[in-house]
Amino acid sequence: MSDRVLHPRPLTQADFAPYGDVLEVGGTPDKIINEGFCARFHDRARLDFGKDGRAGISIFHARVRQLPLRLGLVERHPEGSQAFIPMSADPFLVIVAPDSGRGPGRPEVFVAQPGQGVNYHRNVWHGVLSPLHPPAIFAVIDRIGPGANLEEHRFDQPYSIEEH
Amino acid sequence: MSDRVLHPRPLTQADFAPYGDVLEVGGTPDKIINEGFCARFHDRARLDFGKDGRAGISIFHARVRQLPLRLGLVERHPEGSQAFIPMSADPFLVIVAPDSGRGPGRPEVFVAQPGQGVNYHRNVWHGVLSPLHPPAIFAVIDRIGPGANLEEHRFDQPYSIEEH
Repeated sequence: MSDRVLHPRPLTQADFAPYGDVLEVGGTPDKIINEGFCARFHDRARLDFGKDGRAGISIFHARVRQLPLRLGLVERHPEGSQAFIPMSADPFLVIVAPDSGRGPGRPEVFVAQPGQGVNYHRNVWHGVLSPLHPPAIFAVIDRIGPGANLEEHRFDQPYSIEEH
Repeated sequence: MSDRVLHPRPLTQADFAPYGDVLEVGGTPDKIINEGFCARFHDRARLDFGKDGRAGISIFHARVRQLPLRLGLVERHPEGSQAFIPMSADPFLVIVAPDSGRGPGRPEVFVAQPGQGVNYHRNVWHGVLSPLHPPAIFAVIDRIGPGANLEEHRFDQPYSIEEH
């Protein structure tokens, strides 16, 4: 296996914890509401929009990607967290990387399953939105505010994301 | 037609404007991002969490409902807006009511189509989450904060929501 090849694995809260939150039905509901008709899993994302920002909801409509996928670029948002909620029950790729102190380290790739969204914590390196199926529409909860909030990193040698 | 019967109609931003925001792909994207791979429809919800609140993301898992549906109860949140993002591409009912000054007026019922979410503005009367299909999982962006934030109203005579 080339050291530039990455294989996706299932998305779990435990494995994803260094990077952010998995948004899903999980564990015991915090509250049963609506006269018994609804379970609430309460406040599951660590949102952070800095001192000059506020929360906003935007809609992203992305192109569908296929494996093998060339990964040449990751980005991060120094001023705020960013959550992706898929508006269809379809898998999508979640690409993240630790910070080495001199840029992103070796990326990790997860596949979100139907019913899973993610929240990237502030300043976490991540790949761009990579849905695997149409309609590829996501609600995104991120920072609305002044100033630059995007840092991009291009790898000298791109990675290739491939099936096992 | 009994005056206690309500018929759902398709959800549009124009009809829903008195109550909140429709969250969907619509019109020209505000920005093309990710090297051309993604359209961003920017900041499409009027979020409002009061002075003591903050945004949170919770996950709701509701029971599936069927028509005809008895509507005996509506509620509102005096301290904050509340957005519902379906995590599957399935229709759900959106039930709202104007405020008459002495409680909710006659409700209006919409059907959200695949790819549509809603944001109820602060203090807008609405019915409880009423998905029509499994898996009935929603991301909810609402106020996290101290104090009571729920007012309920029971109709003396319930309404019935029915197909045309």
